[in-house]
Parts: sequence; C-alpha cells; structure tokens
Amino acid sequence: MTCLPASSELDGLVVVLVRPRNPLNIGAAARAMSNFGAQRLRLVNPYAVAFREARSAVGASAVLKQAEEFKTVAEAVADCTLVVGTTAVRNRVLQQPLRRLGDQSGGEIRTALRVGSVALLFGSEKIGLTNDDFSHCHWLLTIPTRAEHISINLGQAVAVCLYEIAGSEPTGTAVEKVHPATAGEIEQIGEALLESLHKSGYVKPGNDAVSGKKVRSLLLRLRLSSMDVKVLLGMVRQIVWKLRQTRSD
Amino acid sequence: MTCLPASSELDGLVVVLVRPRNPLNIGAAARAMSNFGAQRLRLVNPYAVAFREARSAVGASAVLKQAEEFKTVAEAVADCTLVVGTTAVRNRVLQQPLRRLGDQSGGEIRTALRVGSVALLFGSEKIGLTNDDFSHCHWLLTIPTRAEHISINLGQAVAVCLYEIAGSEPTGTAVEKVHPATAGEIEQIGEALLESLHKSGYVKPGNDAVSGKKVRSLLLRLRLSSMDVKVLLGMVRQIVWKLRQTRSD
Repeated sequence: MTCLPASSELDGLVVVLVRPRNPLNIGAAARAMSNFGAQRLRLVNPYAVAFREARSAVGASAVLKQAEEFKTVAEAVADCTLVVGTTAVRNRVLQQPLRRLGDQSGGEIRTALRVGSVALLFGSEKIGLTNDDFSHCHWLLTIPTRAEHISINLGQAVAVCLYEIAGSEPTGTAVEKVHPATAGEIEQIGEALLESLHKSGYVKPGNDAVSGKKVRSLLLRLRLSSMDVKVLLGMVRQIVWKLRQTRSD
Repeated sequence: MTCLPASSELDGLVVVLVRPRNPLNIGAAARAMSNFGAQRLRLVNPYAVAFREARSAVGASAVLKQAEEFKTVAEAVADCTLVVGTTAVRNRVLQQPLRRLGDQSGGEIRTALRVGSVALLFGSEKIGLTNDDFSHCHWLLTIPTRAEHISINLGQAVAVCLYEIAGSEPTGTAVEKVHPATAGEIEQIGEALLESLHKSGYVKPGNDAVSGKKVRSLLLRLRLSSMDVKVLLGMVRQIVWKLRQTRSD
C-alpha cells in the first residue's frame, strides 16, 4: 500500500460544468481545480465560443487543456459512482436530498472517492442546474449564504466547494466493501425499465420526460451495487425482449 | 440584549484590497462579500480605472457602491483591533505568525469580531501583499492549496476566506473583557516611539523604513489594550517632548 501524494486525493473528483457561457468562469473553475488538486474537468454543452476562448487564453491551465466535452449530463457522469448537484435552492421543490456544504457533505464525498469517481455538477451562470439535471444526482449540495444574496459566481462556487472537500476527512471508519454502481450502469437499467414501462402501457405517450426523471431518481435512491446492477439489468432486458414480442403479435 | 440577525455576524469584518488592478476581481470580491454577509469593503491605492469600471458595472453590488478608498494600509485598518493579512507564502521569510485557513483561524476572527472590527487584507493580483503591508498585521493567513499551484485568484480567495469565517464558531467561551487597542492607536505609539528612537540616535538616518516595520511588529505582538495604549502613548510623547528640547539645546 503506497500512500497517495496529497495532490492525488481529489483525483477521482470530476467537476462538471453544465452549459457554461462565460469563458472567464470556465477558466476560473479550472484554476480553482488546479489550486485544490482536482484535475478532471468536463463540460456539458458549453457555449462553443466560450470554451474556445477559455482554452486559448494565455496561461490556460493543464486542467482546462485536458477538459472533455459531452452532449448530455448522462454521458458526462456515466463512470461516476456518486453524482452531486450544486444549487442555490431558491423556491424550488426538490426531489433529491439537500445537504449544506460544511455539514459532513465534504466528508461524504471524500468517503465516496475511496471507491469510485464522484461528479460535482455546476449549472449555467444564469439558471443553474435544471430539474432534469437534478434527476441525475444522488443528492444536492448548497453553499450556505446570506438569504438576501444566494447566487454565487460560478468560479467562486467551484473554489469554495473544492476548498471544503479538500479540507474534509472521509466520514465513517471502514471503506465500503460493496462496489457501488456507476451512473452509466444505472442509466442502462433506467432506459430498459422505461422501455418496458412504455411497452406495458404504464407510461402514456407524451409523458416520457417526467417518467424518465422519476425512474432515474428511484434507481439512484436504491444505491445499487455494481453486482446488483448486472442482475437487475438482465431481468429488465429479458422483460423488454418479451414485451417487444408481445407487441409484434 | 437583542440577538443579531445572521446577516450581521460579519458586520465588523472589513475586507481590504491592497492595490487591486482588475475591475472584475474587485467586483468578484464585493459579490462574495454580499453572499457571505460582509459589507465593508476598503481599497488601498486601487488602479483608478479599475475601481471606476468595477463601480459602474451593471449590477454592481451595494457593497461596491459603498466601498471606501484609502491612500495607505495604516489608514485603511486604523479602526480595527485585529489585522490579518492573506498570503500564498512562497519562499518568503515571514516576521508574523502564520495560520492556515480552517485551523481555528476562522474561529479566532469570529472571537475578535465580538469586541471590535477585524481587517482582512488581500494583496494585488500580481505580487500579493508586501513585507511592508505584512508589518501592519497581527498574523497572516494562508489558504491550503496544492504545492504546485498556490496562487489563488483574488475573487476566489475572498470567497473561500469569507465562506470559512462565516461558517466558523467563535473560539473560547467568554468574551474578552479587555478592550483591545485599534491599529490606529498602535500606529500613534509607533510613530511617537520611532521619533524618540530617531532623536535619541537609536535609529540611524536612512534606516527609517526597516525600523518603522520593526517597531510596528513589536507593538502588534504586545496585544495592547485600549487603556494601556493611552498610558504608553502619554509616556512616549513625554519622552519625545523632552528629546525635542534636548536637540534644540
């Protein structure tokens, strides 16, 4: 057992910027990552000009140069075993559990990093993350602020979250023995389950988006292990196969 | 005794930006202050164009509009009873005690806020605070980062520090009964003491700057009470008066 160097403790942390529009914010996020030792930056549907500008900026960090681009949140978090969305909350009714930064949340993320990759999602400057983005998250994280001014600048929000996570100790004493499923594995079951619900008439046409989110949230709440996912996926796919035949009868 | 609302807990905290040059950073610092409930922004010798631009920016916060401008650090911190300078350290030899953000430092600042104003100094984007700026500080504060990338963006550094301070509990159980001296009161003694050292031949001409810093650091280390300052100031001023006469003999 070699002891990882300090700079590697956040190696499994993936910062995901969803639809960022301002090149300065993208650069600031990358810089904070470099300060606090997180290396993996992913962008979902960034405003193309912004991403190009941020990347070509003088002094753009290695983090920014190695940033990956994705079309959907699902693809960006597919290899992660814990997905956390950041939000200023406002008056929204949330379907996911909400935690405050500073209340154990940093430690939970550190614990999850021991067994897999963790995605930390930040929304666009204007509207933040949508309910659809939230549906990919195991839980949501909010930075405590003054009630009168809850909207934090994107680059500053990334810096504050990474500072807290970098300074947190993993919670719990033992490393989890069960290997958790990745978001990508869960998405596979979700898709198969949704098809079976369609084919069986549980989901009415035109209601796909809402049902998709519901199914995803349910599956994330189950905290499936990687092994259980394989069993479940086999079951659901078999059902889908049968339903497909039934339909063609 | 009325309980202060949460938004007033950092009312005594004064964020001092020393020689800032970038209007976006000034704006970002002000925004983070508003997020975390600090209202008093002071600028020492800001690059004039930057300050003007930051102030006139669309959506400039109330914090920014009420920001005060000073010619020297001494004037900007004169009414504060605790002065803390932020630094990335590097290879500098420091004369002041150094604390890490997260290690009790937030609690110490919260404790000091119970009895007086606290100044938190941030240096310019390029060179940070100078040794001369440090000489006005009771202690220095550093944000723990990866060793390979210690330089944090100004706006992000302000956000991280204020997040930590806002989330800290005051250390110690009782409020200090002794009212600490302000930086301005200590500066008065320093000036009188320095004059007496000049007149007595202790300080050689041409060595003023170094001696000024040494005297200031010594006085800050003493953690004088407001009452002791008055007594000491009376003593030193009497000595100066006498020395002036001696010189004219």
